[in-house]
Amino acid sequence: MLPTLIVFGDRTANEVLEAARLAHSNSFGNIERLYFEEPSFTGVHLPKHIQSGVEVFFNIGVADVRVKLLIHARCLQAGWRPFTVVHPSAVISPSARLGQGAFVGPLAVLSTNAIVGDHCIVHLNSSVGHDATIGDYCAILPGARISGTVKIGDRVLIGSNAFVNAGVHIGNDCQVDALTYVCRDLQEGHILSVRANGPMKRIVRN
Amino acid sequence: MLPTLIVFGDRTANEVLEAARLAHSNSFGNIERLYFEEPSFTGVHLPKHIQSGVEVFFNIGVADVRVKLLIHARCLQAGWRPFTVVHPSAVISPSARLGQGAFVGPLAVLSTNAIVGDHCIVHLNSSVGHDATIGDYCAILPGARISGTVKIGDRVLIGSNAFVNAGVHIGNDCQVDALTYVCRDLQEGHILSVRANGPMKRIVRN
Amino acid sequence: MLPTLIVFGDRTANEVLEAARLAHSNSFGNIERLYFEEPSFTGVHLPKHIQSGVEVFFNIGVADVRVKLLIHARCLQAGWRPFTVVHPSAVISPSARLGQGAFVGPLAVLSTNAIVGDHCIVHLNSSVGHDATIGDYCAILPGARISGTVKIGDRVLIGSNAFVNAGVHIGNDCQVDALTYVCRDLQEGHILSVRANGPMKRIVRN
Repeated sequence: MLPTLIVFGDRTANEVLEAARLAHSNSFGNIERLYFEEPSFTGVHLPKHIQSGVEVFFNIGVADVRVKLLIHARCLQAGWRPFTVVHPSAVISPSARLGQGAFVGPLAVLSTNAIVGDHCIVHLNSSVGHDATIGDYCAILPGARISGTVKIGDRVLIGSNAFVNAGVHIGNDCQVDALTYVCRDLQEGHILSVRANGPMKRIVRN
Repeated sequence: MLPTLIVFGDRTANEVLEAARLAHSNSFGNIERLYFEEPSFTGVHLPKHIQSGVEVFFNIGVADVRVKLLIHARCLQAGWRPFTVVHPSAVISPSARLGQGAFVGPLAVLSTNAIVGDHCIVHLNSSVGHDATIGDYCAILPGARISGTVKIGDRVLIGSNAFVNAGVHIGNDCQVDALTYVCRDLQEGHILSVRANGPMKRIVRN
Repeated sequence: MLPTLIVFGDRTANEVLEAARLAHSNSFGNIERLYFEEPSFTGVHLPKHIQSGVEVFFNIGVADVRVKLLIHARCLQAGWRPFTVVHPSAVISPSARLGQGAFVGPLAVLSTNAIVGDHCIVHLNSSVGHDATIGDYCAILPGARISGTVKIGDRVLIGSNAFVNAGVHIGNDCQVDALTYVCRDLQEGHILSVRANGPMKRIVRN
């Protein structure tokens, strides 16, 4: 029996779902989206119509890192395995490496020797330059340009049409706003926005 | 006899024309561009070599909304019908909806459940995010990023590499300059530019 | 015997190399990258394993214009010929013209009647609008938008996600920073940056 792929989330999850159906419909007996209302989210339960014994893969189509980590933990508890979805129109260099549970959207590019970690979203029309390294649970939003040899930590968000200059290092848990120019290293846990004066320490709710 | 497709305009019309020839050459007996000098534009006449009785479709490859509306009215008077041209390299989600007489350029993306109105131009390398809604006669210029759930009215222009944040509403007849960040709702008839301080009321010549 | 293609340089050269292998592997018996450490760069020597008598083509995958010109001169001395590499995912209008020894990266667009000179790099996800003209040895970096009818001289660099407005003229040896808006003509030898106030005269080391 072919395995099942479950895509978690709401709107972004629809984008992952469509890409999965375009690219991977031959690999799965069932590809479906599982929506949950966040306040009442108490765990992940296998939908009833999925037969017991079928192998289950998952992809988390959620931007919020806290929710993403929570779903991830529950999925692993259930014995499910992460699955990477790449839209058929994306261009992935043969020398690039892409982690597990990731999503690469339409017309995104991963250039030569780029490394993108687990559960990242590399969104539509964005690009990751040659020899750039991106950690886990990152989101590279539409049209963002990660230049060559950039290093980005975990749980980082790079906004739409933003630009990260060649060789720049960005620490864990940073957020770069849309259309923002990152010309210097950004220390862990900072926000950089074209609409503000310089980097701000990010306040993270636990 | 196969119908004829006429693309109105000058330079942008060449882009529409080429896309039409790449994508739709089997559907038409004749695909041609009809140039007109605007000052002497007094009506649309069927080119002589098009035989009477042939079905005629049209697409208006003109950025100027006033000229566009004028041509549109004349075409409808002539009994012609609008035709949507999509470059073969564009990525249109199966769940997106695209109006009549529109043009989608090379490598543009319409994401899941996006709705784009009649006679819009969604230009090369630009993107319309999931669940975004765009009215009629809009132009989304190259590299512009319309985020998810954005709502845009009629006759709106979004400049190249501009960014519209998720959920923002933009009223009718607005213009957003290139590289401009739209983070708040924009009232009808306003211009927003990265080169100015805040939105300006747009002066429209009648 | 099939000719050899040599791609000069380091990291960008890997991008050219991969594109050449994807697009042109049937045209060459051998496609390889030739690295050189710039300080010790004293000339171009045919790698030993390439047999004498084989026809050699070259592409220079180097951003630095000075180095590029030096390699170019040596290659011509050796009797080699420039070769243009286009990534298979790029969209080149049938009416566009592309010079010799150029590189067009993944998902870049050259629109109708665009003219791009010799040894230019038009990088990933960038676009050259209709009827735009670009000279020799230019680099259009990822996501940059050259609007319609723009004229750009030789040895010009346009940064990532930058924007050049329709009809603007940019002189030789200019550099436009990433995310920068070029709304007026830029005289020869100037730098324009979103991070500075107005154009600066560029200091060129000889």
